[in-house]
Amino acid sequence: MGPHPAVAAIRLAVRRVLHDILNDHRPAGPPTGALVPAPYTRPTAPLVLVACSGGADSMALASALAFEAPRLGIRAGGVTIDHGLQHGSDLRAAEVVLRLREIGLDPVESTAVTVGRDGGPEAAARDARYAALDAASERHGAAAVLLGHTRDDQAETVLLGLARGSGIRSLSGMAAVSGAGGRYRRPFLELDRQTARKACLVQSLPVWDDPHNADPAYTRSRLRHEGLPALEKALGKGVVEALARTAQLSRDDADALDAWARRAEDSVRDATGLLECAKLYALPPAVRRRILRRAAIEAGAPAGSLFARHIEEVDRLITGWRGQGAINLPGKVVAQRQGGRLVIRQG
Amino acid sequence: MGPHPAVAAIRLAVRRVLHDILNDHRPAGPPTGALVPAPYTRPTAPLVLVACSGGADSMALASALAFEAPRLGIRAGGVTIDHGLQHGSDLRAAEVVLRLREIGLDPVESTAVTVGRDGGPEAAARDARYAALDAASERHGAAAVLLGHTRDDQAETVLLGLARGSGIRSLSGMAAVSGAGGRYRRPFLELDRQTARKACLVQSLPVWDDPHNADPAYTRSRLRHEGLPALEKALGKGVVEALARTAQLSRDDADALDAWARRAEDSVRDATGLLECAKLYALPPAVRRRILRRAAIEAGAPAGSLFARHIEEVDRLITGWRGQGAINLPGKVVAQRQGGRLVIRQG
Repeated sequence: MGPHPAVAAIRLAVRRVLHDILNDHRPAGPPTGALVPAPYTRPTAPLVLVACSGGADSMALASALAFEAPRLGIRAGGVTIDHGLQHGSDLRAAEVVLRLREIGLDPVESTAVTVGRDGGPEAAARDARYAALDAASERHGAAAVLLGHTRDDQAETVLLGLARGSGIRSLSGMAAVSGAGGRYRRPFLELDRQTARKACLVQSLPVWDDPHNADPAYTRSRLRHEGLPALEKALGKGVVEALARTAQLSRDDADALDAWARRAEDSVRDATGLLECAKLYALPPAVRRRILRRAAIEAGAPAGSLFARHIEEVDRLITGWRGQGAINLPGKVVAQRQGGRLVIRQG
Repeated sequence: MGPHPAVAAIRLAVRRVLHDILNDHRPAGPPTGALVPAPYTRPTAPLVLVACSGGADSMALASALAFEAPRLGIRAGGVTIDHGLQHGSDLRAAEVVLRLREIGLDPVESTAVTVGRDGGPEAAARDARYAALDAASERHGAAAVLLGHTRDDQAETVLLGLARGSGIRSLSGMAAVSGAGGRYRRPFLELDRQTARKACLVQSLPVWDDPHNADPAYTRSRLRHEGLPALEKALGKGVVEALARTAQLSRDDADALDAWARRAEDSVRDATGLLECAKLYALPPAVRRRILRRAAIEAGAPAGSLFARHIEEVDRLITGWRGQGAINLPGKVVAQRQGGRLVIRQG
C-alpha cells in the first residue's frame, strides 16, 4: 500500500524540485576528447535546507525533504528563524529544531533575528528572515533553500499585488525559483494548503499555528480569513487556482515586456545617451513606460516609491506635450523635456 | 455659482469624450493647394446617443450629454433597451423614454429585445443589448453611443476576469473606446458610481434601481455587494481604483504582446506555412503561447473555450518534447508535432 495521497503529493512536489537542483548543480564533465582524465575527486553530496516555522506547510515540506533527499544522494538540513516577536519564541524555535532532528534532518539550526520597522511589520519580518536564510545557506554551503509557500499563499500575494494597482509585475506573485543563483525554491507553489495540512495529520506531525496568521492586524491575515473566502463565495471555488495561474501568466508577460524594453532602450537614445522623444513616441505605451520607469530608477528614484501615476505623468511629456514644466519624482529625481529630448536626473 | 461638484465631474467627463468624437468625425479639409474649392455642403450636426437603463449611472450620463452636446453643435439622443426579463419592463422602458425626452434628448426610442440563453443569463442579456444598440446606432447614423459604465463596474469586470485565470487580456476590463469604428464610448470609466448617483440626486433626476443588480443569483451582484466590500475591508479603500488602473495597464501590456506575437508569427513559419518548433522554442514563453493560441483559433478552436491549460499542453510539444501524441483542443482541433514542425488543424 502506497502513502496517503496527500503525502504522495508533497513528496512528488519535492522530488521534482530536488531533480531540478541536481541538474543545476551537476559538476561539468571532463572536456570531450580530453586525453588525460582530470584527477578523480569524490563529489560531496549537495545539501538542501528547508526553512521551517513549525507550521503545517513547512513541516510537511520538511517531512517530504527528509524522505526524498537520501534517495537522491542529497543531504537534508533545516533552519528555523526566531523572529523574537512573541513571548517564548525562542522556546518555540528550539522545539522546531528538535522536531526537524527527529524526522532525520541534519544539520538543523535555529537563528534569532532582530526585526526592524522598515516598510511595515510584515515587510520588516520578511527582510530579517531572508537575510538570516541567506546567511545560513552560505554558512552551510547549501545548494538550495526550500520554502513552504503554497498555492493559497500565492493567491494572497497576487491579491496584495492587485491592491497596489501597479501593473502585471506586481500580479506575478512569488517565483518558483528566486534569490541569488536560484537559491530559493518553492516546491508547494502549485499545491494547496489543505494538502500540506492533511499530510502532517496523516504522518502524525505536530504543527504549530502561528497566531499572527489569524491576527486581523495583518493585511495578509485579513485577506486569508475574510477577503479571499468572500471572493470565493462570489466567484466560485476556482478563485485560488485562477489567481495562481494569473501569477504565472503575468510573470511570463512581464518578463517578455521587460526584455523588449531593455532591447528598445538602446535604439531610443541619441549619441549622448539622452532619450529621444520622437522615438519613444513610436513605441507601444507598455514598452515606452517601462523604459521611462527604468530611466527614473537609474537616475535614483527608489523603485518602491515610483508608482504608475508618476510614470504616466512623465509619459505625458512624450504623448501630450504642451510645454509643461519639470516633473518631480520620488528620490529628488526630475524629468523634463528639452529640445525633443527627455532629461531624467537627480535635481 | 457653478454646478455641484458631482454634476461638474460628470459634465467634464462627457465633454472630453464629445471632443474626442468631434475630432474623430471632423470632415477632411480640402487638399492643400487645391485651386478650385469643393462645393460647399452644410455639414449635418453629428448625433450622439446615450444607452440608458434608467439607473443612476446612465441617467447621470444622459443629463450630462443633454447639457454638453448643444454647446458643441452635437445632437443628443437616447436609446433604452427593454430586455423583457421582468414583468412590466415595457412600462419601465416607456417611462425612461419620457424622462430622456424631458431632459431634452431627441431622438429617443425604446427597443424590445429577446434574450437567449447562450453563455448564461448575463452574457445573453448583454449580447441582445449590444445587437440592439448596434442596430439603433446604424438606423440613426449616430457618430457614437455613450455607455454609463463607471470605475466600480470596471473593478468588478477585472475581478470577473481574474476569476477566469486566463491571463492579462481578461484583466483589462472594458475599453474606453470599443465596438466597430470606436462606436461605443464610456465617459464614466474613471468616475465612481457614487458621483453619478450624487449627480442624479442634486439634479432631482429620479433613478430606477434594477432589482437584478441586488440579486445574489448574479455573479456580478454577489461581487458588488459581498466580494468587493470584503476585499476593501481586507486591503483598504483604494481597491476599486487599483483594479481600474490594473485594467488600463493590463490592456496596454496585452496590446503590446499581441503586436509582438503577430510580428513574430511570420518569422517562425517555414516556406509551406507550418510552425517550426526550433524557432518557436527561441521565443519568450509569453510570445510563443500567444502564437500558439492564435494558430489554434485560426484552425477553428472557439476562442471562448480555449483555456490557458490547453495552450500550456500544446506548448509542451515545443518545450518538453518526449514524443507525446496529438493534443485535442476544443472545436475538434488537433495539435501535433511532426518532423520538427507543429501541425494544428481541425481533425
